[in-house]
Amino acid sequence: MNKQLIFQKRPFGLPEADTWRLEENQIPELAVGEVLIQQHYISLDPAMRGWMNDVKSYIEPIQIGDVMRAGSIGKVIKSNNHPTFKIGDCLTGWGGVQQYIATNGEGWYKVDDTLAPMPKYIGALGMPGMTAYFGILEVGKIKEGDIVLVSGAAGAVGSVVGQIAKIKGCTVIGIAGGQHKCDYLINELGFDAAIDYKSEDIMQALKEKCPKGIDVFFDNVGGDILNAALTKLRMRARIVICGAISQYNNKTAVKGPSNYLSLLVNRASMQGMVVMDYAKDYGKAAQDMGLWMMQGKLKSKEDIYEGIENFHDTFQRLFSGDKMGKLVLKVIE
Amino acid sequence: MNKQLIFQKRPFGLPEADTWRLEENQIPELAVGEVLIQQHYISLDPAMRGWMNDVKSYIEPIQIGDVMRAGSIGKVIKSNNHPTFKIGDCLTGWGGVQQYIATNGEGWYKVDDTLAPMPKYIGALGMPGMTAYFGILEVGKIKEGDIVLVSGAAGAVGSVVGQIAKIKGCTVIGIAGGQHKCDYLINELGFDAAIDYKSEDIMQALKEKCPKGIDVFFDNVGGDILNAALTKLRMRARIVICGAISQYNNKTAVKGPSNYLSLLVNRASMQGMVVMDYAKDYGKAAQDMGLWMMQGKLKSKEDIYEGIENFHDTFQRLFSGDKMGKLVLKVIE
Repeated sequence: MNKQLIFQKRPFGLPEADTWRLEENQIPELAVGEVLIQQHYISLDPAMRGWMNDVKSYIEPIQIGDVMRAGSIGKVIKSNNHPTFKIGDCLTGWGGVQQYIATNGEGWYKVDDTLAPMPKYIGALGMPGMTAYFGILEVGKIKEGDIVLVSGAAGAVGSVVGQIAKIKGCTVIGIAGGQHKCDYLINELGFDAAIDYKSEDIMQALKEKCPKGIDVFFDNVGGDILNAALTKLRMRARIVICGAISQYNNKTAVKGPSNYLSLLVNRASMQGMVVMDYAKDYGKAAQDMGLWMMQGKLKSKEDIYEGIENFHDTFQRLFSGDKMGKLVLKVIE
Repeated sequence: MNKQLIFQKRPFGLPEADTWRLEENQIPELAVGEVLIQQHYISLDPAMRGWMNDVKSYIEPIQIGDVMRAGSIGKVIKSNNHPTFKIGDCLTGWGGVQQYIATNGEGWYKVDDTLAPMPKYIGALGMPGMTAYFGILEVGKIKEGDIVLVSGAAGAVGSVVGQIAKIKGCTVIGIAGGQHKCDYLINELGFDAAIDYKSEDIMQALKEKCPKGIDVFFDNVGGDILNAALTKLRMRARIVICGAISQYNNKTAVKGPSNYLSLLVNRASMQGMVVMDYAKDYGKAAQDMGLWMMQGKLKSKEDIYEGIENFHDTFQRLFSGDKMGKLVLKVIE
């Protein structure tokens, strides 16, 4: 049987348990040219929250009754004459929160799970890693000597952003929640400084830790942190808007950055990005990232939970901050 | 005697009459290498409000006791061996709100007042015109076929922005206050459509007048208008942050754009600009603008008031909207 998580109710605010229901259905039959993938791991990402809202965005909203959308990785266990994929191939794509999926392979990519364990391919070597890579290099346009501030710095995207900035010769300050995460940024990932937004006053901390201001702010968080960062921009600074996790479960309007006129004073820019736009260059990015990993310059941590029935509880960790690095759910039994 | 307007009290909110005092002082003596300029016209600009706040910005704040800062234009009436400027030369620079100024000429530019009347050199051919030119071309990066929205569209900057966008083959929609200004935009300046923010619901009006969305938003206004425009961005849209006149006299925090995540969804950017950065290219811009004026493609209106003692009342018109085009004060008696 195929356990599937069905999206059954649009959430208002933080999703409650009845947002989804677990169903057991038959494992699908294969049409000619299809493969059956047994999914091993599901990627949990803050962006999922946005997909649940019935609004125009960079991607179609999930519809009620659909399998919950998610990136995933698994292995081909059956093929009905698929032209390229073979039994045993490890594939990553948009498999959704379910245990099995039949597909003609469109949108799926083969990866080598002997080089890196599967969860890394939905983390630092997957969508979050790609987001970090193109966001900080193409949108943030970092150059040697830049002072780079990253919010959500211990997360799947932020932790890679900061390390790439270090590789490129920048000074990097990370904002994260809790001493444990801040220690990780400095001691494990080589950040120059860290700010614990849960215990420190963010304005005061920025003053101390970015005394010369910032050239690039990579923002995953929004809200008060974005607003504070705006006060520290250097001339021609770039703000990369990757996300706004502090605002995703708002029941009222998003908090707009009241300090946005700092963009004018400092001739700075604030630009949004969506990783899919860079799909044609994923190969080159993966090559760079893989090399940096082998050289020990790029580290990543996956926080892996188990059981498709635990999806809701695991999902909450995205917003409570109670996880470290990339959040992953193992769904193979 | 030299009538001078002295900045005597930092305003909170909309400046009251006691923000300044009028003084009569001796006309300054000239050191060797200086000229005496009799000022004819003073430029009144929304940016003046920002210069009065004691905060770090793109320019030093005006200090208590200083002559009120202002762009101006006038004629040389005396020279003490100035190497280049001669009696009768028409010069424009930062003369401040006063009738006479002695200067070594640094920061002053000679213009030909037989080609255009003096007020145009502090309007469409001066700082506001330059702001429009570099803002829409260099920051807005307009190209033929773009849909361009301009706020403060009947003002000194906005009216030029819209006309340059028309010259470059764009569709142009202006936002202004009142039917009279909206008619002017369409009938005199050739805008494709206008929105009267005083009588129309801005969201509804944008829906009707920009049904396909906008590629470039040139913002002089901020607040609700910026927030509404954010909902209409097309892919890779550019927002030029030139000013935020709706927020300059706030007694509470500036209203931040709560819809800023539209930048992410639409891979759009929001960038600030300050005209001084383009000083080295003013010559080229003035040439283009002068040519467009001669060809009848670029029109400008100056709203001229008289008497340095009327500075305060005239200044209020910047924020009440009770003026048309470039606001100018004649100070020569």
